[in-house]
Amino acid sequence: MKRNELIENIKRKGSFLCVGLDTDIKKIPSHLLDSDDPVYEFNKAIIDATAPYCVAYKPNLAFYEATGAQGWITLEKTLRYLKENYPDQFIIADAKRGDIGNTSKLYARSFFEHLDVDAITVAPYMGEDSVTPFLGYEGKWVILLALTSNKGSRDFQFIEDKEGTRLFEHVITTSQKWASPEEMMYVVGATQGEMFKDIRRVAPDSFLLVPGVGAQGGSLEDVARYGMNADCGLLVNSSRGIIFASSGTDYAEAAANEAEKLQKQMHAILSEAGII
Amino acid sequence: MKRNELIENIKRKGSFLCVGLDTDIKKIPSHLLDSDDPVYEFNKAIIDATAPYCVAYKPNLAFYEATGAQGWITLEKTLRYLKENYPDQFIIADAKRGDIGNTSKLYARSFFEHLDVDAITVAPYMGEDSVTPFLGYEGKWVILLALTSNKGSRDFQFIEDKEGTRLFEHVITTSQKWASPEEMMYVVGATQGEMFKDIRRVAPDSFLLVPGVGAQGGSLEDVARYGMNADCGLLVNSSRGIIFASSGTDYAEAAANEAEKLQKQMHAILSEAGII
Repeated sequence: MKRNELIENIKRKGSFLCVGLDTDIKKIPSHLLDSDDPVYEFNKAIIDATAPYCVAYKPNLAFYEATGAQGWITLEKTLRYLKENYPDQFIIADAKRGDIGNTSKLYARSFFEHLDVDAITVAPYMGEDSVTPFLGYEGKWVILLALTSNKGSRDFQFIEDKEGTRLFEHVITTSQKWASPEEMMYVVGATQGEMFKDIRRVAPDSFLLVPGVGAQGGSLEDVARYGMNADCGLLVNSSRGIIFASSGTDYAEAAANEAEKLQKQMHAILSEAGII
Repeated sequence: MKRNELIENIKRKGSFLCVGLDTDIKKIPSHLLDSDDPVYEFNKAIIDATAPYCVAYKPNLAFYEATGAQGWITLEKTLRYLKENYPDQFIIADAKRGDIGNTSKLYARSFFEHLDVDAITVAPYMGEDSVTPFLGYEGKWVILLALTSNKGSRDFQFIEDKEGTRLFEHVITTSQKWASPEEMMYVVGATQGEMFKDIRRVAPDSFLLVPGVGAQGGSLEDVARYGMNADCGLLVNSSRGIIFASSGTDYAEAAANEAEKLQKQMHAILSEAGII
């Protein structure tokens, strides 16, 4: 999906919500466990319930790999279901891959050709030749980890060089030489609040994928206040807060309610900013 | 596998060779393509041919994920074959994972319980809570990326803080507070030659997993000269140089020859150092 289509979808739906399909088989309602593929059944119902309120889905690969080949089959079925029924959804494989060039090339083939997702999250530690093999696919995106939502982000991402530039700023500044904002986004955790100001100083035009709202405690208002640009420029992800809103038979309805709540807040934020 | 067992294996076999199972279906001999699972057939023959000369195998996950669920089945079969026939081999899943805590926990479950490998490579960018979920499994290891073998390692890993400490040194120093050398190793690329001196200054006891000998141009002599410690402390990986030594029907024999060549050099190095 191209940048202008994504922006159109955000405006049309009054939403920049991404629903994280972190589907842990240990947490899905027990009545689903009798079906052939409980995770797939769960995902289908969650997608049908939340699609009106979001513009993107983000399956986290760990939750599928946890059950090996069976998990991959479930992932492939989920992606096919999304593409056939909701072709306007932006699909992010949250994989955090990154390896030497010939290996990253294979990951790119796996995610952009075989799974045919719109975007993949990539870890920056190994530098340019670990990232560039993911570029150059028409309408496909790299989403580079910049400033993550977890406590451990403090360990290395804030290390300052002699000029006071922090590692996450280096990552953003350097990687903008590799790709335009038409094909690269950044992960910036919602828990990093006013850091969004510093991020926008170095990446004014880029889309930011923002995890950490909800279960991890980040504030949607802060993210929008400091992180939004003229195109919106944000995809805010919520996973557990939506998909596990209820563990009963009403799980899909509960997920829809949570997604709708966020969508309404987002609609108000987009209106106020004059974007819609 | 515990550290003392690994060291015993190295001494017994006079080898610290790790064979990288980066099995690209586009590169395997064409006569195998008629079988039901060509990559598995290739891996079995390579393993049988090279096992006398090495102490470890390292499948790179990208090469299996590239074909989705089928690739995972092939990986699972390959690991089972290794464990049943060569239980003294140390198995490394080269996956370069790393995510927020609850997700890393799932990756740990996938690799240490489901696949039951001895070690997994992990990317350090997200810090402590992305790494520690992989710790605490009896006889299992985290192999943290420190200084990689690719050109892009220059982009971020060498960034110096105000005191002149480079990022890869921060990674090694900080992570040693999370885990002992009984459960954590570091990836240090063979192409980094004399950097091994600096690494040994901050990690004298840790095992180092060293990719980049062979196709990537690193020198085994330099690695041993600067990187070996009293326990050997090295696992040197070669992938393409061994497994794709021949593209004909003699591929397994050719792989054995290349592995044996490296093993002989390693035997001489270990003897000279008085380790065997």
